[in-house]
Amino acid sequence: MSTSPDLVPAHALDAADPLAAHRDRFVGAEQPLVYLDGNSLGRPLRVTGERLRSFVDEEWGGRLIRGWGDVGEGGWMDLPLTLGDRIARTCLGAAPGQVVVGDSTTVNLYKLLHAAAALRPGRTEVVLSADDFPTDRYVAESVARERGLHLVWIEPAEPTTGVTDDEVAAVVGEQTAVVLLSHVAYRSAAIAPLAAVAEVAHEVGALVLADLSHSVGVLPVQLDRTGVDLAVGCTYKFLNGGPGAPALAYVAARHHAGLAQPVTGWMGHADPFAMGPGYEPAPGVRRLVAGTPSVLSMQPVADMLDLLDEVGIEAVRAKSVALTTFAADAGRRLLPDARLGSPADPERRGGHVTLLHPRMREVVAGLWQREVLPDYRDPGGLRLGLSPLSTSFAEVEAGISAAAEVLAGLA
Amino acid sequence: MSTSPDLVPAHALDAADPLAAHRDRFVGAEQPLVYLDGNSLGRPLRVTGERLRSFVDEEWGGRLIRGWGDVGEGGWMDLPLTLGDRIARTCLGAAPGQVVVGDSTTVNLYKLLHAAAALRPGRTEVVLSADDFPTDRYVAESVARERGLHLVWIEPAEPTTGVTDDEVAAVVGEQTAVVLLSHVAYRSAAIAPLAAVAEVAHEVGALVLADLSHSVGVLPVQLDRTGVDLAVGCTYKFLNGGPGAPALAYVAARHHAGLAQPVTGWMGHADPFAMGPGYEPAPGVRRLVAGTPSVLSMQPVADMLDLLDEVGIEAVRAKSVALTTFAADAGRRLLPDARLGSPADPERRGGHVTLLHPRMREVVAGLWQREVLPDYRDPGGLRLGLSPLSTSFAEVEAGISAAAEVLAGLA
Repeated sequence: MSTSPDLVPAHALDAADPLAAHRDRFVGAEQPLVYLDGNSLGRPLRVTGERLRSFVDEEWGGRLIRGWGDVGEGGWMDLPLTLGDRIARTCLGAAPGQVVVGDSTTVNLYKLLHAAAALRPGRTEVVLSADDFPTDRYVAESVARERGLHLVWIEPAEPTTGVTDDEVAAVVGEQTAVVLLSHVAYRSAAIAPLAAVAEVAHEVGALVLADLSHSVGVLPVQLDRTGVDLAVGCTYKFLNGGPGAPALAYVAARHHAGLAQPVTGWMGHADPFAMGPGYEPAPGVRRLVAGTPSVLSMQPVADMLDLLDEVGIEAVRAKSVALTTFAADAGRRLLPDARLGSPADPERRGGHVTLLHPRMREVVAGLWQREVLPDYRDPGGLRLGLSPLSTSFAEVEAGISAAAEVLAGLA
Repeated sequence: MSTSPDLVPAHALDAADPLAAHRDRFVGAEQPLVYLDGNSLGRPLRVTGERLRSFVDEEWGGRLIRGWGDVGEGGWMDLPLTLGDRIARTCLGAAPGQVVVGDSTTVNLYKLLHAAAALRPGRTEVVLSADDFPTDRYVAESVARERGLHLVWIEPAEPTTGVTDDEVAAVVGEQTAVVLLSHVAYRSAAIAPLAAVAEVAHEVGALVLADLSHSVGVLPVQLDRTGVDLAVGCTYKFLNGGPGAPALAYVAARHHAGLAQPVTGWMGHADPFAMGPGYEPAPGVRRLVAGTPSVLSMQPVADMLDLLDEVGIEAVRAKSVALTTFAADAGRRLLPDARLGSPADPERRGGHVTLLHPRMREVVAGLWQREVLPDYRDPGGLRLGLSPLSTSFAEVEAGISAAAEVLAGLA
């Protein structure tokens, strides 16, 4: 009898998991609740509540206005860049000085799509996928309308494979300003071949803007090496920053000289406290900062980066692959009428797994009633977000077993 | 002997102050530090640290993804509007459904300047003051460049009086799309006559966009009654939301039907979780929401609203007037070489007082070394931000006495 992964029981996988002990560092790990939506909102670390309490009483309340400091003095003023550098090093494979933390993914997308168009003046097209997350599509439509650009949509032939470099090559040309694509697709978890897409885009002189929301913190991105020009990403999914934590924006150093974005707030000025007439952009990515940085909501992200530094993103990825493989196998075994809506090859798959069945909307509603929390995504997708450091194999098995029971019980 | 205010000692004013006891509700009130910059960053309330800790462990960690709910279900999804309604009722004199909390003041200004231009298509001018806060000027420049608008600058004749309705009347016309102005000037604290400005703007069909950053929480705004069309404001000054807390945006109900803004994120969609093709704006001000609301950093604002509801904004204003009057008198008495850089009439003055002297930059540097924290604003302004619920008269006296000592000690 073979020891194929779907026959190894969950408890044995948990017992052999070198990262298993970290699960207890998260709030709620001891509860019977099964949480399979860490890719929508990561659990808080147990240290985070106390960190915020002490931030309020000691840093905000104690330092008061002195907490800000001036640019380069190591205070809150520098947090958008210092936290950006930490994410760059720990998760993104990006050299320092290219990542800023602030605003939302939506606002950062807006800024960087404008920046891309400004870096490629005269070009008239934005390439994107019809499968992209709504905000990406909506913001691209808005920026295109404002700048008189034309949107060129890729309709992925097979959602589970995501956008391919061939599909991009088929539509880019000398009119393409920028190709916008998700690194990990929000429904299928398909990993886009960033380096190959960057190559075909660069061949025609176009830029690539990657949305890393579903990849940052769960797999090594190697952003500098891919040749991607611009990127945005989210910190409340696999970086456990809490509901609405500020997002990240990346601009490759080679584009800093020509970088321009329209939300020209005082905090992106070269000398914010001079308060002088006329906007003069700060050097590098600091010009992406617009209003006053959201210091309070950056605190929890630092806790998760501490843990990721301890564990290492490669080990996180190894556990993630094991979890998604186990989920796909358990789905085949326990939900034989469902279809895998994610790449079967774990190398092509991010940190979540989607199982498709026409009645999954009802299944998810039933699961929520049983304190089993996955997500639902049209059409018919049970989306299992498997946050590697806070999810056990037993939790995955319990969740998929419960889904099978709910499905069997539907009239 | 008369009992003119400058002869009543600070300790007597504190003893007679009906709001004095509230000062102990703030972190650090017991410390010798003199904090006179509450209009830049308000002190935290003592309850806020614990509120955040319990938010992390119980709401975020306990509710997890269920915390969001769907629109209208009373969860985090509704917070931008429910918190907006609370601010509207407690501080702004605005009916429900017109205020949203989210993003930064900068981003909200950007959205509302675009919205104003869209509400007045074909008009080519934006009127603003050269004395406006930098972000207001920089963002107006950017939006004007993007939309091909022309900026018409008001150079206030006398900074201490702020922008007058006569100055606005002199420059508005049938080409004016919008008049942008600060309700309370960030340097002088001069209160702009919003209702009178709205009247002269409306006479020529223009809109008024008010920046309430230095008025919200410290004086009753009566926004609906002023006729102002659009407004933005800050929650980390007199609303004590913490460094970088999300801002507010107001749009008068009469403009909701035609309201359009370019940062079209999924959270401003009529049905965000449908994730369908094409952006369809949500009804009313919810379409101003762009990315995922910053739930964590909205929590402290709710604590301050609880206190403001208990005290009432009229009582806060009465204390504010007493504090700024005392500061102006103490300045005259203790710093006879300085000049009042704020309106002498308390009815024309917001919650801070600026004292002008060519050497104030050095004075403020010396004060910071003595744990006396006012702010400095060019040219030569010692800016005393007197947060009514956390500042005592003794603190004001100690601060101005220390300033006199530092000034006397300069070579």
